[in-house]
Amino acid sequence: MAERKSVPDPTLLRICRYLRILERHGAPTISSAAIAEAAGVNAAQVRKDLSFFGEFGQPGVGYDVKQLLSSLKKMMGLDREREVIVIGAGALGSALINYPGFENRGFKIVGVFDNNPAKIGHRLRGYEVMPIDRLAEVISEHNVSIGIIAVPRQSAQDVADALIEAGVYGIVNFAPVTLKVPDDVVVRSVDLTLQLETLAFHLDN
Amino acid sequence: MAERKSVPDPTLLRICRYLRILERHGAPTISSAAIAEAAGVNAAQVRKDLSFFGEFGQPGVGYDVKQLLSSLKKMMGLDREREVIVIGAGALGSALINYPGFENRGFKIVGVFDNNPAKIGHRLRGYEVMPIDRLAEVISEHNVSIGIIAVPRQSAQDVADALIEAGVYGIVNFAPVTLKVPDDVVVRSVDLTLQLETLAFHLDN
Repeated sequence: MAERKSVPDPTLLRICRYLRILERHGAPTISSAAIAEAAGVNAAQVRKDLSFFGEFGQPGVGYDVKQLLSSLKKMMGLDREREVIVIGAGALGSALINYPGFENRGFKIVGVFDNNPAKIGHRLRGYEVMPIDRLAEVISEHNVSIGIIAVPRQSAQDVADALIEAGVYGIVNFAPVTLKVPDDVVVRSVDLTLQLETLAFHLDN
Repeated sequence: MAERKSVPDPTLLRICRYLRILERHGAPTISSAAIAEAAGVNAAQVRKDLSFFGEFGQPGVGYDVKQLLSSLKKMMGLDREREVIVIGAGALGSALINYPGFENRGFKIVGVFDNNPAKIGHRLRGYEVMPIDRLAEVISEHNVSIGIIAVPRQSAQDVADALIEAGVYGIVNFAPVTLKVPDDVVVRSVDLTLQLETLAFHLDN
């Protein structure tokens, strides 16, 4: 499926936004113009983004919301549950565990880890915090493919190495540091200050 | 400065990434290829992104790191301190207050707010949590132009309305909801699950 591999990241991010718009849409059909308006892009962009995934919609009628949702979710790999673990039981880890979007979107948290003895064994929002040395066991038992790193920057590379060693090949990194990983591991970094910085630009203009 | 207004958001986000790379770079000069490699894009993209802000670098020599950093920061509006407030003293607010990037990048937190009586008056990572009804007073006193929303989705629009009413025209929204704001207010939304979703796509391919 070479074509699927070549979908650019900005398109993937917009598709995820369209999914949210479709999910909230009350009517059975929607136009590319309506998706575009809700997403803050133009209709040509919406049509171009969707064209990466196939041919959808009918001229004059628009898109069948249910059908488009189901096709896009399937193509994005969001049509089934995935088991994820969170490493870091500090404020950020706690916020992530509590974030409504994860379970809603099929990401099931099956383990929360920390290396702080004061946290290990205690419950954090219903999850028992486990020591990092149980990482491999939990990953193997639950067939975890995604690890979410929410530790301080100094520990992030060590955690990434341990995840990869244990067979995880997808990482979402919230630590403000660039991780070094082998080519077959995919890292998506979330930098909590980036949007704040682009805002500074907009406020000046 | 019409040209500056038209810099696309993906370019702004990449420029912020380049800034981090330049800050960590040890040598006095750097090539577009080296920036590109560290940022995971190609060198032509780096040159195109930088060209929005002016002419930098010399063929065969590369960019003067100090000079490029200083020019980009100035053009991004990141060359001076800005006072921001955080609304929401839960786990996410706490994580944001503690996030090293904010103060490092010139964003100074001057107020933390919540509507929960159990939190008001207590200290959260050194900040006294204030009631929402003091929002306008603090915004005016500190000339705050940016509010960071870290409340549950049900309260986010009310908080946005209060911020705008008090004169804030830049909002970073961490609540998973689309805010309705007047045209002259800029909202940057941070969706903590988006990167996780694009990862699902990559893992399937």
